Amino acid sequence: MTRFALTIEFDGGPFCGLQRQDNAPSVQQSIEDAAKRLTGEKVTLHSAGRTDSGVHALAMRSHFDIDKPFEPFRLMEALNAHLRPEPVAITHCEIRPEDWHARFSCVGRSYEYRIRNRRAPLTLEKGRAWHIARPLDADAMHEAAQALVGQHDFTTFRSAHCQAADPVKTLDTLDVSREGDAVIIRAAARSFLHHQVRSMVGCLSLVGQGTWRVKQVGEALAAQDRAALGLNAPPQGLYFVAARYADDQQENSK
Amino acid sequence: MTRFALTIEFDGGPFCGLQRQDNAPSVQQSIEDAAKRLTGEKVTLHSAGRTDSGVHALAMRSHFDIDKPFEPFRLMEALNAHLRPEPVAITHCEIRPEDWHARFSCVGRSYEYRIRNRRAPLTLEKGRAWHIARPLDADAMHEAAQALVGQHDFTTFRSAHCQAADPVKTLDTLDVSREGDAVIIRAAARSFLHHQVRSMVGCLSLVGQGTWRVKQVGEALAAQDRAALGLNAPPQGLYFVAARYADDQQENSK
Repeated sequence: MTRFALTIEFDGGPFCGLQRQDNAPSVQQSIEDAAKRLTGEKVTLHSAGRTDSGVHALAMRSHFDIDKPFEPFRLMEALNAHLRPEPVAITHCEIRPEDWHARFSCVGRSYEYRIRNRRAPLTLEKGRAWHIARPLDADAMHEAAQALVGQHDFTTFRSAHCQAADPVKTLDTLDVSREGDAVIIRAAARSFLHHQVRSMVGCLSLVGQGTWRVKQVGEALAAQDRAALGLNAPPQGLYFVAARYADDQQENSK
Repeated sequence: MTRFALTIEFDGGPFCGLQRQDNAPSVQQSIEDAAKRLTGEKVTLHSAGRTDSGVHALAMRSHFDIDKPFEPFRLMEALNAHLRPEPVAITHCEIRPEDWHARFSCVGRSYEYRIRNRRAPLTLEKGRAWHIARPLDADAMHEAAQALVGQHDFTTFRSAHCQAADPVKTLDTLDVSREGDAVIIRAAARSFLHHQVRSMVGCLSLVGQGTWRVKQVGEALAAQDRAALGLNAPPQGLYFVAARYADDQQENSK
């Protein structure tokens, strides 16, 4: 039995999310089915993060175990051939020891959220970004975001369906920057609660539009109450961009 | 009668191209139909460039004349409302004098061509870039490209359907650069022949893969013969990025 670590890119649009669900197409199912067709083995994919329907990944990190021997590059190529035409691609594959776990060994996760801030509707970025027509003050959003950085009880920013035992998380960075008519939010932490990034972005967008004052984000956090949430941002602007492991040797995204 | 200049962004995927054709959906038709529904007037759209099926635009420049008075911002908003759900958006609208012509007044056009150079198939960029799995030497491509810069007879790099009277054009820049696993080609000239950018990129890709030597691009140019063309690159990697006018007052893309 060999443990293969995969780096995965996908367009979340057609999927119910990364994780397998009954009666809806998932990225996990696509990859497990491709592996089954290739090896004849029933495999289970474990991943650094879970993503909702419509959320994308540039470099999700996952693993599965298979008995049949494979050279990692050949396994990547064969999986990609079996994944066609679905918008899921294995961009890197390598062998890891059996105590390496894509989810439990992961020590850092980062997300990027993309907003296009202009009057005109989206064309090339439809389904790839959140379109906000009202002008956003990205500097105010960044200032408000800093109230969330550090160790806090993130109950306000947590889905009712979140399965985490503890709502206390440590947010390492939450940076907001404007690049032309794009507003980009970058978040990094050891781990996140379900809907945490989208919930934080939703509230920051209210600050950006002047609907909330800067300090209201910190007040919503202090409330420790989901009812204090201003808005949950839609999924199509969210990208899982990287997972970090203590034993990573190399730039692992391609 | 007022002349309205438009800046247009579109996803070229679903269209036969910018220019109106019988029996196939075009960007021109979408905009003219939207204007008809809005104003009741039959308008004709004139544009800085023509684009093939599948080619995208970030900031095409166009104009039409209408009798009904409009404030430009309100016209833009109303056109965008009538264009939904098609992947065409008016990102800027302004009034120009009647002797201003989107095509004939244009003194510079620029294109960008995007290649993703990796083994894995494309997911989020499917239909938005050319996927080349074999490693490309972007430095060699850039060196080869310089043979095309300047005033030349570009017959080799011209479609058999090209309607230009003269195959002599002056190419101002043709730059190739690598950005991670993307290889970007940027081209600027007063004007281009039909298929010129895609034909140049196709030959440069052969140099990048080592199929052609660097100096073969210059030799193909000197042949002044379409049969000397190595390859015409596919449309989905090509973006019309800007048109320049002598009387442009501002950054006009958003």
